[in-house]
Amino acid sequence: MKVALLGGTGAVGQRFVKMLSGHPWFELTVITGKTSVGKRYGEVNWVLEGEVPEEFRDIVVSENSLESLKEVDLVFSALPSKEAREFERELMNRGIPLVSNASALRMDPLVPLIIPEVNPDHLSLIERQKELGVGPAATDPNCTTTVLTLPLKPLHDAYTLKRLDVASYQALSGAGYPGVPSYDIVDNVIPFISGEEEKVQNETKKLLGEVDGGEVKFASFDVQATCVRVPVLDGHMVAVHAEFEEEVDPEEAAKLLENFSSEPQRLELPTAPARPIHVRGEENRPQPRYDRDAEGGMSVVVGRIRKGANRHSLLFVVVGHNTVRGAAGQAILLAELMRAKNII
Amino acid sequence: MKVALLGGTGAVGQRFVKMLSGHPWFELTVITGKTSVGKRYGEVNWVLEGEVPEEFRDIVVSENSLESLKEVDLVFSALPSKEAREFERELMNRGIPLVSNASALRMDPLVPLIIPEVNPDHLSLIERQKELGVGPAATDPNCTTTVLTLPLKPLHDAYTLKRLDVASYQALSGAGYPGVPSYDIVDNVIPFISGEEEKVQNETKKLLGEVDGGEVKFASFDVQATCVRVPVLDGHMVAVHAEFEEEVDPEEAAKLLENFSSEPQRLELPTAPARPIHVRGEENRPQPRYDRDAEGGMSVVVGRIRKGANRHSLLFVVVGHNTVRGAAGQAILLAELMRAKNII
Amino acid sequence: MKVALLGGTGAVGQRFVKMLSGHPWFELTVITGKTSVGKRYGEVNWVLEGEVPEEFRDIVVSENSLESLKEVDLVFSALPSKEAREFERELMNRGIPLVSNASALRMDPLVPLIIPEVNPDHLSLIERQKELGVGPAATDPNCTTTVLTLPLKPLHDAYTLKRLDVASYQALSGAGYPGVPSYDIVDNVIPFISGEEEKVQNETKKLLGEVDGGEVKFASFDVQATCVRVPVLDGHMVAVHAEFEEEVDPEEAAKLLENFSSEPQRLELPTAPARPIHVRGEENRPQPRYDRDAEGGMSVVVGRIRKGANRHSLLFVVVGHNTVRGAAGQAILLAELMRAKNII
Amino acid sequence: MKVALLGGTGAVGQRFVKMLSGHPWFELTVITGKTSVGKRYGEVNWVLEGEVPEEFRDIVVSENSLESLKEVDLVFSALPSKEAREFERELMNRGIPLVSNASALRMDPLVPLIIPEVNPDHLSLIERQKELGVGPAATDPNCTTTVLTLPLKPLHDAYTLKRLDVASYQALSGAGYPGVPSYDIVDNVIPFISGEEEKVQNETKKLLGEVDGGEVKFASFDVQATCVRVPVLDGHMVAVHAEFEEEVDPEEAAKLLENFSSEPQRLELPTAPARPIHVRGEENRPQPRYDRDAEGGMSVVVGRIRKGANRHSLLFVVVGHNTVRGAAGQAILLAELMRAKNII
Repeated sequence: MKVALLGGTGAVGQRFVKMLSGHPWFELTVITGKTSVGKRYGEVNWVLEGEVPEEFRDIVVSENSLESLKEVDLVFSALPSKEAREFERELMNRGIPLVSNASALRMDPLVPLIIPEVNPDHLSLIERQKELGVGPAATDPNCTTTVLTLPLKPLHDAYTLKRLDVASYQALSGAGYPGVPSYDIVDNVIPFISGEEEKVQNETKKLLGEVDGGEVKFASFDVQATCVRVPVLDGHMVAVHAEFEEEVDPEEAAKLLENFSSEPQRLELPTAPARPIHVRGEENRPQPRYDRDAEGGMSVVVGRIRKGANRHSLLFVVVGHNTVRGAAGQAILLAELMRAKNII
Repeated sequence: MKVALLGGTGAVGQRFVKMLSGHPWFELTVITGKTSVGKRYGEVNWVLEGEVPEEFRDIVVSENSLESLKEVDLVFSALPSKEAREFERELMNRGIPLVSNASALRMDPLVPLIIPEVNPDHLSLIERQKELGVGPAATDPNCTTTVLTLPLKPLHDAYTLKRLDVASYQALSGAGYPGVPSYDIVDNVIPFISGEEEKVQNETKKLLGEVDGGEVKFASFDVQATCVRVPVLDGHMVAVHAEFEEEVDPEEAAKLLENFSSEPQRLELPTAPARPIHVRGEENRPQPRYDRDAEGGMSVVVGRIRKGANRHSLLFVVVGHNTVRGAAGQAILLAELMRAKNII
Repeated sequence: MKVALLGGTGAVGQRFVKMLSGHPWFELTVITGKTSVGKRYGEVNWVLEGEVPEEFRDIVVSENSLESLKEVDLVFSALPSKEAREFERELMNRGIPLVSNASALRMDPLVPLIIPEVNPDHLSLIERQKELGVGPAATDPNCTTTVLTLPLKPLHDAYTLKRLDVASYQALSGAGYPGVPSYDIVDNVIPFISGEEEKVQNETKKLLGEVDGGEVKFASFDVQATCVRVPVLDGHMVAVHAEFEEEVDPEEAAKLLENFSSEPQRLELPTAPARPIHVRGEENRPQPRYDRDAEGGMSVVVGRIRKGANRHSLLFVVVGHNTVRGAAGQAILLAELMRAKNII
Repeated sequence: MKVALLGGTGAVGQRFVKMLSGHPWFELTVITGKTSVGKRYGEVNWVLEGEVPEEFRDIVVSENSLESLKEVDLVFSALPSKEAREFERELMNRGIPLVSNASALRMDPLVPLIIPEVNPDHLSLIERQKELGVGPAATDPNCTTTVLTLPLKPLHDAYTLKRLDVASYQALSGAGYPGVPSYDIVDNVIPFISGEEEKVQNETKKLLGEVDGGEVKFASFDVQATCVRVPVLDGHMVAVHAEFEEEVDPEEAAKLLENFSSEPQRLELPTAPARPIHVRGEENRPQPRYDRDAEGGMSVVVGRIRKGANRHSLLFVVVGHNTVRGAAGQAILLAELMRAKNII
């Protein structure tokens, strides 16, 4: 399948490019950007480790326009939310297959918001898209939401989530590039990321909700989030205080997390990690620098699993790579899932 | 009053020295240490901004021993908890006046644990010490607990705390010196600080408890804490999710915080800040680097005051200087309070 | 004197504002900016420690235009070099007194480039400006050049500089705000700062040159510089390898540096430090974080003074505050010098 | 060959362990340490990325003693210099084959100091060791010296080095673990590393010297060095100002560097990089974070090659991985070279 990448010159866009290099199913043939239109992709300011993949160096960056997308079978979007709003809607309306990492369509009742291991069944929303002659369009959630929700899934399956209090420790790459000025963050942390807490609160409940009658019934637990930027390059960490309807045992929870696997693992999708959730027993893990690259950044790492103030409470810490599992890698995994199910 | 400082060469000890320079009531005449015994204080490895205060340069560092303390009227302790355990107990038993920042005696039922603005009335425990012929000995809480509890006080006075979920962003100086190896914390955060979460959970409830029949009845709300080290030099930040028995209005809460003042302000103690709690309205404040030095580090700064998932919930962020308000400055303020009340 | 500040919203501009607060001679009445025109100065994004000085909060940021400058007696410029090029030239041509920190006019043969302690006599160039009916206009050098040249002055007076090899460790604030993206500099240093090495090489020789026949004869020693950005907030450090025509003794050099004082000290100018050069004997000083604030950032701190590979070589390290001594503070000191000499 | 590793629990020791994992010629069977004696190696505090290699997890850390080394064919040493001094001498005297990364024996006239690509011929010193019935013992240089000297080799072959002025930007891992306290280095750089400048000055001249009559005649150029610690995890950067007897052309120099290869490449040693020196043309490279891992950290990366103040001067910047090329990797490469030449 020939694929296009919208917003391919930013931090998340570059991660897409890196992960699409050598992909067995998807051939990246079009990259759009805003500031670098007309440049060879090999000339953009590459901010990731290593070099621009050889095979994409000569792609000329094109505009975000329908014209640019004429010859592709699938469009990945790494657009900033403002640019995404109108253009992604247009793609959807014109029936151009879209897998987006942007926030624009995430809360649209017609559009499934998916973590492939968490709610692959939500792809059924696309049937309604078909009835309406739009799409197929699917989105994956915000990076922090992803890192948080993956470990919640097996717990919410076994017990019933009642309440979540979370605080995040978010990496610089989550702000894109150039992102956070260095003068703001050396010897500092910043307890505000625009729109982030709302995304965590809303998207978590859509992801763990249930499809009923062609729409998602949001999960009903409470979510309270404080989101904070820290001077870490990559890898979001979330401190999770979860309360369940039932009593919870930390050891049992650890086993549920460690043994969790889901449809991407069963389908052996190319980008699926063997174990989407790793559990570490050391008292000081997970840590962003040491754990963000678990299974190439596609697994999250959970640790410090412990009791809370009462028997219904479970506390833990989770780290995940915000631009791999939290963005590009997950969007590619979602596209693989859709392909495996013949949706695209 | 002549005062001694135990553990005066460490990071907190140096802060004591700096803050005792030019103090109107206390004259620092003895400094003890472990590794620098026999050295002039001017020769120790000074890690704070500026220089060793001129007047203390020629004090020769002495051992932690009773012998060293013969001629002082009051002992401040900045000892590491291990060293503090036996020695502080001995001082207390021998009736040597002690104000300690160490954790050794904090949970002792006989010893008041005090934030001067929060629970000055707990000093009444010292009457029981007198009856038993020990003390007077008083302690101030852990740095994170202090930063957290100061803003809780006016809220818990107006409403009734039911539950606290907190996550911390703690500065490097909180680990003492040499403390955290740089290789561990560049491009990283560490979600574990030994004993810290327990201290936050226990000390908060003692501080907000009530003295009844010569002992403290601990407050009964639940506390859940995740404590994390971040690459910030000074200034602990805490993300606070608080739930009350009553409905809470963020604007009203902001006013309660901003207008809060207490006994140290009324008594015009030398080290007391004019307003112990500052409130900021900007969406991205407080931040450790910009807010840790409010009123010389003696005030905490609260911001992002907002509603939680239900009407009983209040979320906010607080920053305070961990070695000033969270340690040396507060211990000195506590000694001033005790002096003003003729306890020492 | 009423003064205007061009480019007052940037990092250097804010430092000007801070240092002009309470200035005994200069009253800041006009602040221009580019992005914040029409805003109250109290509303700009303040990046320095503390708050916007009370007395300037209500100044409305105006455009960079002659119109804005009608009622002032002196103009300070903290403009970026591009914006400075035409506008400063225009101010000079129209006879509006100008003291600029921008690079635009520094190499103009008519315009003195001055460190007040190093070459106050270069102000005589302004006589030629008068003859031509322009100015008075004066500039101060690039921040790195300043930090480097201050300690060279007493050495070059006592001996004769033959060759300089310098490598810099430059702070983030030197790049302005937003400046260096945080993703570029965490766990990294960047060995390139556009135009910086050329500035260091050229400006040093103009500063240490001699005025002869109404123009500056540049000093003739060789300068080789490598300029590098490091993750430090404020304070440029320079490793200096200097070679002289004569043999040099490190101890003697240390005394020359320590005892150096010059016209700003004799004239007791308000912003002049008591000793423009501090010398430290510890083996690991100076360091940016500990030494950038010497005498409020107006002094540079020299250390590690030692022999080189031969008797003509002297090696040392110097730290200075890049936005105080290296920019705003020095420009204000220069204006004070010009005022004391009745040039403005 | 069975090999032992002395000092295997430190930062450099761990890098050895990582690089010996799966090595085709050397089987690591003994690891000594100081603080972890008796522990399984899998239980030491692993500070590198990834995990302790599976095959070494069950090795029990033994003492630094002859007893521990009875059954090995070769000893690698990553000992701190103090511990190395006596013990390495003893190993040498007893004829136990030794390849050391410690500084203890580097300046011993009997012991070759070798960068395999730079001076493999210096191994001939071992013949004298044999005559004296000691050794074979060889050492590799200090990390900064290595990164500096590799690119000097092809230049010094083509021209004649006359003078070197270098300033370093050295990573935290160079100080071992725990090494530099984080409180010292956040928002700071430290212009002093004990003994480092002397090592750079002396070792460079031994490495580029010539063996004559069984001993090394040191090269005669002047070296002046300022060594500075910066907050970078791994990767030393050196700003090099080199002066040659002959005129030097930067473009020609770039080609010499890029095309350089030597005996390890011809012998296709397992750890040899394809090109030991990479040259980059971007104006802002090399940078530690982006370039330290070139060819797994075994290549250094040179950039900013440019003219100095006169035609004999060449300026450039070089980055190399201090614990791979600068320590463990190079020592292993040296052992491979010795094996290929049947010295061990």
